[in-house]
Amino acid sequence: MPVTTRPGGRSARVRAAVHRAVQDLVADGQPEALTLPAIAARAGVHPTTLYRRWGSLADLLGEVATSRFSGDVVVPDTGSLRGDLARWANDVATDLADPDVVALMRANVGAGPGGGYVCVSDRQEQLAAMLEREQSRGGRVPTVDRAADALLGPLYYRAVFTGGPTGPEWVRDLVDGLLCRQ
Amino acid sequence: MPVTTRPGGRSARVRAAVHRAVQDLVADGQPEALTLPAIAARAGVHPTTLYRRWGSLADLLGEVATSRFSGDVVVPDTGSLRGDLARWANDVATDLADPDVVALMRANVGAGPGGGYVCVSDRQEQLAAMLEREQSRGGRVPTVDRAADALLGPLYYRAVFTGGPTGPEWVRDLVDGLLCRQ
Repeated sequence: MPVTTRPGGRSARVRAAVHRAVQDLVADGQPEALTLPAIAARAGVHPTTLYRRWGSLADLLGEVATSRFSGDVVVPDTGSLRGDLARWANDVATDLADPDVVALMRANVGAGPGGGYVCVSDRQEQLAAMLEREQSRGGRVPTVDRAADALLGPLYYRAVFTGGPTGPEWVRDLVDGLLCRQ
Repeated sequence: MPVTTRPGGRSARVRAAVHRAVQDLVADGQPEALTLPAIAARAGVHPTTLYRRWGSLADLLGEVATSRFSGDVVVPDTGSLRGDLARWANDVATDLADPDVVALMRANVGAGPGGGYVCVSDRQEQLAAMLEREQSRGGRVPTVDRAADALLGPLYYRAVFTGGPTGPEWVRDLVDGLLCRQ
């Protein structure tokens, strides 16, 4: 009988094991211990595999962040821009209240230039989608940049820099602040 | 003749050499190479000295950040809250446009919880001082938290996450957005 090889299956398993190892090590809270050899050991794969496939720690962290931060927050459809923004920003705040999420974000930011953008690119696109939908309904909308400054700015500033509270009332106030200038 | 020992002087020289080594290594843009042994080698001091004096990479990075981010931006006195905030926020934006400043900030954020706050605590205090002065003149002022959300939020979000532009017009618009709700 021929030996059935499933390179895609093995490759996917390695990827899953490596992603899991990264998330575990990041959650351990020892940033200095987060190295490709340590990740390889934790995932049970040869370090060479990691260097060959991901090239650098920054690239690997970026892939894990892209995978983690895509699809965990969805674009709501409440019928109004104010309602959409408030619900969505609240979901983002809830996500950012997860210590493992913040740890993965810190690791990406620390990994070098570009490490921050992979954490927020999905959020920026979701914001653009909500504003475009409102515009197609005939509503006046702020620019994506202004909306990101007013909502994502404070959300990520508190998550990364001050650790301040980000409850529903505070989130609603951010949305009010953005829309009061329309 | 007695040998004159100047422990304070030596201690200050070691501190300066170590801070300089940290800033050089951070500016090199190799976050994985930023370790206490590497810093010790660069500074020409024994690694044990670093472990004994700073305990951890996070603590050392925090001290360098505190030293770097204190006093480089001053509180202006233009006679109006709007003028003060605009000039100050513009100075912060200019500071954050320096790649070495952002690299030091990234390293601190990556070093773990608390690494972000040392980068912004001086800014939060300066903001509070400007608001208090305006209040003592009888003016209506936003809370420090709201002002930080509206100004520092977008400034640090762009510096760390998107790398978006932060010119004087954009900064003025942030100040307008904050004060239009008063």
